[in-house]
Amino acid sequence: MSLNRETLNKIKEEVFEANRNLIEQGLVTLTWGNVSVLNRTEGYVVIKPSGVDYHKMSREDMVVTDLEGNSLESGQLKPSSDLKTHLELYRHFHSISSVVHTHSVHAVSWSQSGRDLPTYGTTHADTFNGDIPNTRFLTENEVATDYEKNTGTVIVETFRERHLDEMAIPGILVNGHGPFTWGTSAKEAVMNSHILEIICTMACQTETIVKDASHLPDYILKKHYERKHGRDAYYGQDFDILK
Amino acid sequence: MSLNRETLNKIKEEVFEANRNLIEQGLVTLTWGNVSVLNRTEGYVVIKPSGVDYHKMSREDMVVTDLEGNSLESGQLKPSSDLKTHLELYRHFHSISSVVHTHSVHAVSWSQSGRDLPTYGTTHADTFNGDIPNTRFLTENEVATDYEKNTGTVIVETFRERHLDEMAIPGILVNGHGPFTWGTSAKEAVMNSHILEIICTMACQTETIVKDASHLPDYILKKHYERKHGRDAYYGQDFDILK
Amino acid sequence: MSLNRETLNKIKEEVFEANRNLIEQGLVTLTWGNVSVLNRTEGYVVIKPSGVDYHKMSREDMVVTDLEGNSLESGQLKPSSDLKTHLELYRHFHSISSVVHTHSVHAVSWSQSGRDLPTYGTTHADTFNGDIPNTRFLTENEVATDYEKNTGTVIVETFRERHLDEMAIPGILVNGHGPFTWGTSAKEAVMNSHILEIICTMACQTETIVKDASHLPDYILKKHYERKHGRDAYYGQDFDILK
Amino acid sequence: MSLNRETLNKIKEEVFEANRNLIEQGLVTLTWGNVSVLNRTEGYVVIKPSGVDYHKMSREDMVVTDLEGNSLESGQLKPSSDLKTHLELYRHFHSISSVVHTHSVHAVSWSQSGRDLPTYGTTHADTFNGDIPNTRFLTENEVATDYEKNTGTVIVETFRERHLDEMAIPGILVNGHGPFTWGTSAKEAVMNSHILEIICTMACQTETIVKDASHLPDYILKKHYERKHGRDAYYGQDFDILK
Repeated sequence: MSLNRETLNKIKEEVFEANRNLIEQGLVTLTWGNVSVLNRTEGYVVIKPSGVDYHKMSREDMVVTDLEGNSLESGQLKPSSDLKTHLELYRHFHSISSVVHTHSVHAVSWSQSGRDLPTYGTTHADTFNGDIPNTRFLTENEVATDYEKNTGTVIVETFRERHLDEMAIPGILVNGHGPFTWGTSAKEAVMNSHILEIICTMACQTETIVKDASHLPDYILKKHYERKHGRDAYYGQDFDILK
Repeated sequence: MSLNRETLNKIKEEVFEANRNLIEQGLVTLTWGNVSVLNRTEGYVVIKPSGVDYHKMSREDMVVTDLEGNSLESGQLKPSSDLKTHLELYRHFHSISSVVHTHSVHAVSWSQSGRDLPTYGTTHADTFNGDIPNTRFLTENEVATDYEKNTGTVIVETFRERHLDEMAIPGILVNGHGPFTWGTSAKEAVMNSHILEIICTMACQTETIVKDASHLPDYILKKHYERKHGRDAYYGQDFDILK
Repeated sequence: MSLNRETLNKIKEEVFEANRNLIEQGLVTLTWGNVSVLNRTEGYVVIKPSGVDYHKMSREDMVVTDLEGNSLESGQLKPSSDLKTHLELYRHFHSISSVVHTHSVHAVSWSQSGRDLPTYGTTHADTFNGDIPNTRFLTENEVATDYEKNTGTVIVETFRERHLDEMAIPGILVNGHGPFTWGTSAKEAVMNSHILEIICTMACQTETIVKDASHLPDYILKKHYERKHGRDAYYGQDFDILK
Repeated sequence: MSLNRETLNKIKEEVFEANRNLIEQGLVTLTWGNVSVLNRTEGYVVIKPSGVDYHKMSREDMVVTDLEGNSLESGQLKPSSDLKTHLELYRHFHSISSVVHTHSVHAVSWSQSGRDLPTYGTTHADTFNGDIPNTRFLTENEVATDYEKNTGTVIVETFRERHLDEMAIPGILVNGHGPFTWGTSAKEAVMNSHILEIICTMACQTETIVKDASHLPDYILKKHYERKHGRDAYYGQDFDILK
């Protein structure tokens, strides 16, 4: 199979830029984070290489695999060790095209708490249509057999068991580990990681200020989510002036 | 009606600069914030466009409407979705010329707590002549009928019912949402947002250090407010050396 | 009386640089802070002008008075409104040559708590030989008669009543207001403000991590203070290689 | 004995760079921190000079001693006052080649709490194979006789008494003082200080979010530690592409 080089280069560029944006937004320390993009037409998954310094990697270092994780280019670096988690999400969340994982400080702190992130305000509701779930811990067997794949399995299970829509709540906290977010582009998935970090910071502060803080009333939550993401969304411009 | 182009350009410049200052002071993440200025002589309201990247917008992108929100220039971008909140404030707070809304982290955290911001120190008293109110939540009907306008209505109601002077307490926390501040210029309104963020940070810390922190005694509060804003204010220079 | 222009310019430079250092170290927001230096030989006090933007002031804007606060140059800007507090400290603390006041976030938060700052670690003990006192509130009468002078009076009273040595504990928290520090040079006084801000941050964190945190044992406190400031200090170089 | 000048210059460069990295990563305030490197072949210990401004020191200012702390170059600056602590660690931890000490804010806050740092997540487990110990306070006699050496002795004692492996837990919190970390190179030791600071931040946040936070299950802890540091580690590249 010969690769569609033009498409591939565009994806590599998108993944490379997104990884750098993680750094610029302060979401990544050292090498702890990764972005992947899936092109469903070609079946390419492009992801950051494992354990590589963000400041030294280039676009060409991005690693290409298929949806089963098989390398599609010879001589490339090893993919991020979390690749299998990304693949599991791509296999079950059919509308997503990008996954982001970070160890950003406040989202990890919430992940470690084992609690869902409550919807305390419109900053949350503008992007996430409800509380953000925290998974159960993986079992000893799940860790022993295929840890990274099973991390994805537990994420998917959490959405399915709670009847949540992964496009309406584009992120999750993995218990004892950290946040994963996704979207229809790397830019959107990174933005969701950024927003998740901020609303984790705010929620912790709010609970410090008042015990038993009130959830945002559901009709305000829906209003804010819908004015940005609903059928009649009116936030932003009718065209994307940024392009 | 032909526009007073010279005045308009000056206001656009003022609004544009103020929006950029929000970014520089770390008060705005992504596109979450907006500044407007009202020129009461001409009846122009200039506001940031909705959902536009702060780093890519130019002075010309600022949107002009009248006090009812009617567009005054053809072909312009859509105004900030919070425009109607700003207009409601301009209609009821007769001495203000600028409104600022942000999602700055600590002020949002307080907003989400539902509590007023207590006056714990002179940093607060130098700018705000007393506790900063937190509104009630909007009702389901208020959200359904005209959400953004009613946000302004609830702000005004809060000041009227509590007999507060909007010029002495130039800002408010909207429950579950975030801060709004105002002033007689964009520079002043932005500065008030900046100060509100800082005193929210301090108040949360103070309550972490000691339960049941003491309010600043009223005579010290008045002293500090008056030495900057009273009839015999003596803080600063007699002329504004910054101009 | 003709001024010793060479000495004066050197002091102005020292005060100007120290004020800029406050900004660089993140200790000052907006115009909230001031540094003064006293030259006891000439009787000159040089202080930052009141309410002036740190980024726009120049060395020449520094204001010169005598120890009674009388202006020594014609046509100069108004001195910092806190000048009288500085003068009161110079009159009673005979070995100090510089005073610094800021509204740095964590030191203000502690000031607002009304609590002394406990000595929890060697970071504190390296500079402050014991807990840092928090003053009482000024009385209504003290505020009404000569507020800024009486702020100094209360600081001095706190040291005298508790039998504290102002050279061993070169700073204080003024209740409901903020920190003042001092030293034998502007550089040292600014450094003390910087350190006070950091140990306030640490102490609050420590109390969040554990209730009833232990004071540093007195013999470790003394050891650390003495190895930097005692008769047989051995920290640092025998000469100041920074000069 | 003539010095191996080429080796020495390389170590000085390594120590100098590592000290600067501490600053860049925000781990050091003022002059509070030091890095040393031991070359076991030559018996050289190179360490930062005491109390010197990080921004003004040069590679040549780094101080060389032998393992007993005897100066190996004439005319050099005084070594860091913590040298003896470093030497004690080198004498007992036979596989380490570098030691780092900082007063980074969150690690000091935990040190002051007297508590061990619990393993709450994979961010911790990726580098530290279990909870990070907090030492006892030094006794009055230990402080009086040889304070800095005894600080090292207490660190070693803590590892020995608890049967901990210093290569699996490459750092410690010294009660009432601050963190020490180590590694097989200055780069690794500095990275461990960086990571320790981050996981201290996260652990404090996690405990703010939930009382009685759960330790990471031991099988997840081992999995994460082993995938980076175990015999069959698969994180990162097979070769170090950074070199």
